[in-house]
Amino acid sequence: MGIYGASVTKLIEQFEKLPSIGHKSAQRLAFYILNRPEAEVEEFARALLESRKSIKLCSKCQNMSDKDICDICANTSREQDKICVVQDPRDVMAMERAREFKGYYHVLHGVISPINGVGPDDLKIKELLARITPDITEVIVATNPNVEGEATAMYISRLLRPLGVKVSRIAHGLPVGGELEYADDVTLARALQNRREI
Amino acid sequence: MGIYGASVTKLIEQFEKLPSIGHKSAQRLAFYILNRPEAEVEEFARALLESRKSIKLCSKCQNMSDKDICDICANTSREQDKICVVQDPRDVMAMERAREFKGYYHVLHGVISPINGVGPDDLKIKELLARITPDITEVIVATNPNVEGEATAMYISRLLRPLGVKVSRIAHGLPVGGELEYADDVTLARALQNRREI
Repeated sequence: MGIYGASVTKLIEQFEKLPSIGHKSAQRLAFYILNRPEAEVEEFARALLESRKSIKLCSKCQNMSDKDICDICANTSREQDKICVVQDPRDVMAMERAREFKGYYHVLHGVISPINGVGPDDLKIKELLARITPDITEVIVATNPNVEGEATAMYISRLLRPLGVKVSRIAHGLPVGGELEYADDVTLARALQNRREI
Repeated sequence: MGIYGASVTKLIEQFEKLPSIGHKSAQRLAFYILNRPEAEVEEFARALLESRKSIKLCSKCQNMSDKDICDICANTSREQDKICVVQDPRDVMAMERAREFKGYYHVLHGVISPINGVGPDDLKIKELLARITPDITEVIVATNPNVEGEATAMYISRLLRPLGVKVSRIAHGLPVGGELEYADDVTLARALQNRREI
């Protein structure tokens, strides 16, 4: 398929490396790029390099940031006694969009997953432990509601409880706007177990 | 959403410009990039720049190539008397994969589309006309089987027929491996009209 020369083949390969981009999509994206003005392609390349160069992990919450201490950690007007543990930087964005949590975050950068060879030491758990001072009253574990997320939540809970901090887990239940009929059995069972008096 | 700094916001915007990449996908791709080693991101940026710089249009078939005359046009062992007209460089790849056509190609870079303000002068039709010598016995128009593709095929046919060249159109019919039950009415009607004795 190298009828466009080695450099185009290489570009298609690069696009194929991106998550959920298959060979056909990679081809489509590469041809799109080849049809754009050179200045636009240069702008794309620059955005790649500059963003990658600027990014590091916040030394407190381990979220990605272009500063040593990210904007959220630097904001002293948030609730000082709560830490919400998430598995991924994108989850911080999702939580912030929900506008419900006003404390600080801690990003694990993954979940415990023996099948993928990811153990506790591969995650930012040591860094979380170091943040548990007597000022912290609650750690909310907001890993994903699947097997690995639950296991990671249990692990963190067992690790932190001896330190005298309350560890909570985000609730399972029906999604708002969802329909009972279409809920899966496990979610429905959890929604019942977690029922609250109104 | 600028909690990761301006350069990350810019990277997300760049990914969003790509075809069929929405905001969520752009975010996902950007975070993937930010998590890769710097050397890998540099390789991606280089692939973008180098492929874009290397690419030009073949002076014969107008397909994209890193040479003045593309590999297909330079290959003298192909059938000299046939030209297959396609709308897009990707269609050349698709035709080559089918291994049925052994002549040369001509890439229009689009189809006639009054609604999008694309007229015959915006396509590589002049360049096609210039290639119609007495040696050419057949021009196969393989634009897409939709309204614009058909209109473009009709336009080319009317333009070339006076030059004494046979103009043909790829067949419409049921896709191989498809099921009659799921075919749309128009395709089924065309499949019947184009029936052949066996």
